[in-house]
Amino acid sequence: MSEDQIHASIITIGDEILVGQTIDTNSAWIAAQLNLLGISVREIISISDKAEAIVEALNRELTLSKLVFITGGLGPTQDDITKKTLCDFFNDELVIDTKILGRIEDYFNSMKRPVLEVHRMQAALPKKAKIIENQLGTASGMWFKKDGASIISLPGVPYEMKGLMEQILPSLKTEYPLGDFYHKTLLLQGIGETTLAQNIAEIETDCRNSGIGVAYLPSPGIVKLRLSGTSLQKQKIEESLQKIKASHAEFAFGQESDTLESVIGDLLRKLKATVGSVESCTGGALAAKLVSVSGSSDYYKGSLVSYAYELKENLVGVDANLINTHGAVSKECVEQMATKGLKILNVDYCIATSGIAGPAGGTPEKPVGTVWIAIAGKAGVSSKVHYFKHNRERNIDLTVVYALNMLRRTLSN
Amino acid sequence: MSEDQIHASIITIGDEILVGQTIDTNSAWIAAQLNLLGISVREIISISDKAEAIVEALNRELTLSKLVFITGGLGPTQDDITKKTLCDFFNDELVIDTKILGRIEDYFNSMKRPVLEVHRMQAALPKKAKIIENQLGTASGMWFKKDGASIISLPGVPYEMKGLMEQILPSLKTEYPLGDFYHKTLLLQGIGETTLAQNIAEIETDCRNSGIGVAYLPSPGIVKLRLSGTSLQKQKIEESLQKIKASHAEFAFGQESDTLESVIGDLLRKLKATVGSVESCTGGALAAKLVSVSGSSDYYKGSLVSYAYELKENLVGVDANLINTHGAVSKECVEQMATKGLKILNVDYCIATSGIAGPAGGTPEKPVGTVWIAIAGKAGVSSKVHYFKHNRERNIDLTVVYALNMLRRTLSN
Repeated sequence: MSEDQIHASIITIGDEILVGQTIDTNSAWIAAQLNLLGISVREIISISDKAEAIVEALNRELTLSKLVFITGGLGPTQDDITKKTLCDFFNDELVIDTKILGRIEDYFNSMKRPVLEVHRMQAALPKKAKIIENQLGTASGMWFKKDGASIISLPGVPYEMKGLMEQILPSLKTEYPLGDFYHKTLLLQGIGETTLAQNIAEIETDCRNSGIGVAYLPSPGIVKLRLSGTSLQKQKIEESLQKIKASHAEFAFGQESDTLESVIGDLLRKLKATVGSVESCTGGALAAKLVSVSGSSDYYKGSLVSYAYELKENLVGVDANLINTHGAVSKECVEQMATKGLKILNVDYCIATSGIAGPAGGTPEKPVGTVWIAIAGKAGVSSKVHYFKHNRERNIDLTVVYALNMLRRTLSN
Repeated sequence: MSEDQIHASIITIGDEILVGQTIDTNSAWIAAQLNLLGISVREIISISDKAEAIVEALNRELTLSKLVFITGGLGPTQDDITKKTLCDFFNDELVIDTKILGRIEDYFNSMKRPVLEVHRMQAALPKKAKIIENQLGTASGMWFKKDGASIISLPGVPYEMKGLMEQILPSLKTEYPLGDFYHKTLLLQGIGETTLAQNIAEIETDCRNSGIGVAYLPSPGIVKLRLSGTSLQKQKIEESLQKIKASHAEFAFGQESDTLESVIGDLLRKLKATVGSVESCTGGALAAKLVSVSGSSDYYKGSLVSYAYELKENLVGVDANLINTHGAVSKECVEQMATKGLKILNVDYCIATSGIAGPAGGTPEKPVGTVWIAIAGKAGVSSKVHYFKHNRERNIDLTVVYALNMLRRTLSN
């Protein structure tokens, strides 16, 4: 990264985070926005709502970053001391902002709620700071400046914070010479972080040698491979990812914010095809994932969850002898589930799952984590067995992503 | 807080957090667990996976806290440098732990996957650190000690981290003089935090006056009410929660780590009854929740996901005229879905959902978030409409918890 790159720090204020009652989602959102501007985040720190903790963190982060974002502690209650503390820190004084006061009074009147003194005090704001109006609440944003650094204080309520950031982000571009930053992420399913790393060792070393950052971001069944550098490295970054994508076609399903279910949706729309599922061990989780995409009614029609043997036979129509001979967790059973599903659900493609999610139900021949997945279509049916080694929840999650990628590959061919 | 209170810091290592690609959920979970032991968290800090950043953060947090938890950076790839960095920091050396190596090899063999050199290197561990075995992955936990302080390094994969913490938390009690604490949590569904607070204002004040902490922990559709004090206040804490439970029977579904689906499972087992679902807007998410409970095959048989109108008619057998007259999102339709499901799935109870999850599909009479839920049983069918006001994902999640609590109440009567 270039020397003149602008760095940022994010300080989250609030005991609710330190006691684990609240997960800090604000920082990730802010960090993502800043990265898109080429601002790299040095540190994210969550501290208690005590003046000394705030001052100490502020001093520390100002040594690391030109931009310091602070969220939280701007409410009207006694334990919200950020405003007062920042005011002291910058030798500023609080004065009533009549415009903001008007907005606050309108806000409460419109809700037919009384305007209390604590609410009016939300309009008492630091004189020297640039005030950013909050259209969604009573806590204003405050932009302080000191020795070329910006300290921006925002409310902790996520949608209020985001509303203010939408106003602030454009100004950052004009206020700072943003070092340019370019990154691209390739998404792969069904290949381990380590195997991938071995396969692409040469490309990775080559990238690192030319100053391109390489990061593996794993999530259940999926690896996100991110290359990051500057716009001067744009071509090399894209060519490198292209190479990796080409040599890992069966795994590489998308990039950036793609999801398997959204990619599948796009493929099905292109093909004007419909899909459904017949599920045992996933118990509807596969269907739920397909439905999670807005507009999925364009291609998703429905599913059968045949968890009990009885329903595999009576509802899906799997041959009872077949189950007695091979068991419900078998190639034969899952393929019949998929092919029967095609007709019952009247779809072009049907995914079927049958496995032992655990912790109970395992046998020496079929240990916990044994899962069969089948996909049936006009071209026929194909199936694959997997051996997952995790807890129930994870085994189900993995079955879903492996099934989705199997469908994606079927649709891509 | 007493003077001799033990403080902790949490360091999260990984660029994926600083670029906003991953939300740090680990720290909140760890903080919550530590708080239950009376350990207060001073600071949570997310840093880059660079050696100097790790060393710098470690030095800093050791001045603040006796306990420092580190998550992330323990993967086998080039960008995971935590182990090496900690080893240098504590002047330790990496040696192959043959027991761990054996586990890693078994792990890959059982998955029928090759054991690569990078995997074997996961068994190279610091000589002086106490190694905590990871049953769910290849990255071991490492417990370093320095001048009475503990530095505990854990993998960033949440369920692996949790598995290791379950082993570590009990040891903390024996290693450090932790205060005596007593907590109890009541779980309620379908009542807002503010309404609950108003209803129990007297009890809450009474608790606070006698030094019992009262915390509201909201999650989608659910409020967790936690009372915390010392073992001397055990009786008062339990009596207070009993009072609240009695006056909020329709909302209070459990305590501590109960879930709606686990409570429902226990009720169905007691009644020797079976359940299934016929889902539209939830698209299988309700079934998936019921199946998420280990051993759910004792009472859960299966589901129909009739997302398309065509399947509501042909698969479930809902009267076409009924849909034309009232629409699919209606009392009439959802009740017929539930009653038809009883027979098709051959279950004692059937839950049905039909609604508009959004963002598309809303009308003035039926805005996005309109959801009908019905439950059919031998005693007949009942239904209820809800108007959720959130995004697609949240509307579906809320439908699931409201449906589950409606079933719980039916089973409890």
